[in-house]
Amino acid sequence: MTTTATEQLELLTRNAAEVIPTEELTEKLKAGRPLRVKLGLDPTAEHVTLGWTVVLRKLREFQDLGHTAVLIVGDYTARIGDPSEAETTRPMLTKDEVDAHAARVLDQISLILAEDNLEIRRNSEWLDPLGTTGVLELATHYTVARMLERDDFAKRYAAEQPISLREFLYPLLQGYDSVAVRSDVELGGTDQHFNLMVGRHIQRAYGQDPQVVVSMPLIEGTDGVKKMSQSVGNYVAVTEPADEIFGKLMRLPDQLMIKYFRLTTALTPIEIGAIERDLESGALRPEAAKRRLAQSVVELYHGADAADAALTHFDRVFKNRELPDEADIAEFPLPADCVADGSVDIPCAMKTVGLAKSLSDARRKLEQGGVRIDGEPVSEGRIPVDKLKGRVLQVGKRRFARLV
Amino acid sequence: MTTTATEQLELLTRNAAEVIPTEELTEKLKAGRPLRVKLGLDPTAEHVTLGWTVVLRKLREFQDLGHTAVLIVGDYTARIGDPSEAETTRPMLTKDEVDAHAARVLDQISLILAEDNLEIRRNSEWLDPLGTTGVLELATHYTVARMLERDDFAKRYAAEQPISLREFLYPLLQGYDSVAVRSDVELGGTDQHFNLMVGRHIQRAYGQDPQVVVSMPLIEGTDGVKKMSQSVGNYVAVTEPADEIFGKLMRLPDQLMIKYFRLTTALTPIEIGAIERDLESGALRPEAAKRRLAQSVVELYHGADAADAALTHFDRVFKNRELPDEADIAEFPLPADCVADGSVDIPCAMKTVGLAKSLSDARRKLEQGGVRIDGEPVSEGRIPVDKLKGRVLQVGKRRFARLV
Repeated sequence: MTTTATEQLELLTRNAAEVIPTEELTEKLKAGRPLRVKLGLDPTAEHVTLGWTVVLRKLREFQDLGHTAVLIVGDYTARIGDPSEAETTRPMLTKDEVDAHAARVLDQISLILAEDNLEIRRNSEWLDPLGTTGVLELATHYTVARMLERDDFAKRYAAEQPISLREFLYPLLQGYDSVAVRSDVELGGTDQHFNLMVGRHIQRAYGQDPQVVVSMPLIEGTDGVKKMSQSVGNYVAVTEPADEIFGKLMRLPDQLMIKYFRLTTALTPIEIGAIERDLESGALRPEAAKRRLAQSVVELYHGADAADAALTHFDRVFKNRELPDEADIAEFPLPADCVADGSVDIPCAMKTVGLAKSLSDARRKLEQGGVRIDGEPVSEGRIPVDKLKGRVLQVGKRRFARLV
Repeated sequence: MTTTATEQLELLTRNAAEVIPTEELTEKLKAGRPLRVKLGLDPTAEHVTLGWTVVLRKLREFQDLGHTAVLIVGDYTARIGDPSEAETTRPMLTKDEVDAHAARVLDQISLILAEDNLEIRRNSEWLDPLGTTGVLELATHYTVARMLERDDFAKRYAAEQPISLREFLYPLLQGYDSVAVRSDVELGGTDQHFNLMVGRHIQRAYGQDPQVVVSMPLIEGTDGVKKMSQSVGNYVAVTEPADEIFGKLMRLPDQLMIKYFRLTTALTPIEIGAIERDLESGALRPEAAKRRLAQSVVELYHGADAADAALTHFDRVFKNRELPDEADIAEFPLPADCVADGSVDIPCAMKTVGLAKSLSDARRKLEQGGVRIDGEPVSEGRIPVDKLKGRVLQVGKRRFARLV
């Protein structure tokens, strides 16, 4: 590590929402040894979303400076369910379900983290042997009142919604993970603030130096309103096709662009500052800035060529074909009745979403060459589902429907 | 079992504070099979007190009707500490400490329970193997809000006194004991009401028929004010010498006599009713009734001969020697400075409690034969501690001190 502690501190705390406490992080960096930087991973997640990349990319920054990323696969705690996400008690998962999920998620994460300086640990490794006595000892170290201070618990308690004792144990187990891996730093989203702080407390109770908490901002999803979330569906996943990611980001509300530039791209603060100024002066149109954002993100997960291709595809479909603004295209669920053996019956779909009066009307239009998918003419009566899902079905010049 | 279910019900619910629910107990008795009657035992207790005998004797009644007493030695839970007793978090005990305690307590309990129909179980047997997963599953079955309804928790929470999460787990573990031993009935003091009800709830959660809760009244201690308790010191222990038990009961406030007759003696309701009426009419003086109470209790734990002897001893010391009323004798702690190698220096003790002006004054009185212990003349300068502790030291006709 040739970078000085001060330079490291500047980089590592960039864009962080909280660093608790900064002095301790400075001390740890000055000591010069590789820090153990913990990140808990919910293995039940289907996708690594852009929201998730905010912390993962921060962890990568630690790796690049020679520190050790300690990824905790919460295989044990996933079986309990994390109450911080949902407002009701989540169902418990079986060991096999959790393992299958974890394998998929780790595969996706390998797109972001370096293979070196990476330690992947499953918390069943130490939580299983903890046993009755270990859990009871752990439970000695936290009070009911402090646990009830956690926002979601406080709300549910006030609303007389049930909170099981199991849920109270979750933050303690997560805190014990920090003891088990002797973490120097723990990363997380701001929604994890409470749990990360419990980790500090529990480490102290077990005689360790407490970890520094570095929490990262949450990003709103593509709807621009709610936090990006797989259950809400307003997410961008890093494994989605380049065109999909590009298209989704082009639909992002303008006011979120700069936040996305900061938290989800590799652009430097100087580059982002320039974009911000150009947008303000009018030298850069929002749509052009958004194209750069979409391209930068796609480049991270699909490479520069794919990013260029996505841009070209987007322009061909939406600009050159003079499709209406994305926001004006009505969305319909892909009609399940029209799907069989993985392919869609196009006339059936056209009728269902109102692009044709009848099946025979739909077939006629199809034969006349007046039907397009994402701007490309289509003539077959049946096409595979993935050639239609998420795309724009078009009849003539003016009638559109996005099948989602 | 030749006794009918109705007769059993009458006997078994006699003097109970609560039977929840009576119909279920009737059903279980009607089924005719031996019931499994659980009683949890705090192995950290030093003595089996008369307060404790209230539930132990009730359990014996079940045994005498052919039911099985299932005694749970809370060796595991004792290591956690039961928050229901103290108002602060109690310290954890080691396994060895708990085992030593348990052996002593079980020995004392054998004075009350029958050897037949007795099952002694240690809850470490099932709580140890429960493990992390088992504890978490158990914790699924109870909510934070319901646990906070327990009186002592509610008070401590309101007073902002810390309650550790460990303490919230205790009632669940105790409830799981009921699952492990498949109890049909659980006995306890009224102070255990909440925990006993948790047992019903937990049994249901694990697919068992819930136990019937039979709670017994608590008795006030010899001070007549506070619940009898080893920590308060206002107790009578069944292993105390016959004279001690007798003397302590003679100091009991009159208004507690009938309650003690009902809950701590073998007298029948008819006999007790007669005593009550005679006391009301004045046909029986309170002191005479109390002598009968003291004799009845001593008889239970030391036999009839010892009870007679204790009565005789009491009369000789306190009545024939015309000692003042017990209540008028001042109590002093046995002066530690006067004790060495298990014996007390009498002149030193006399001077310290004010029965002599100086050591030489004390020695003179001793030589003159004017010093008595429990009415018996004493001439030795040193006597073993147990010959003085709890007894009345007397100088001349009018000066007394009880050394406690």
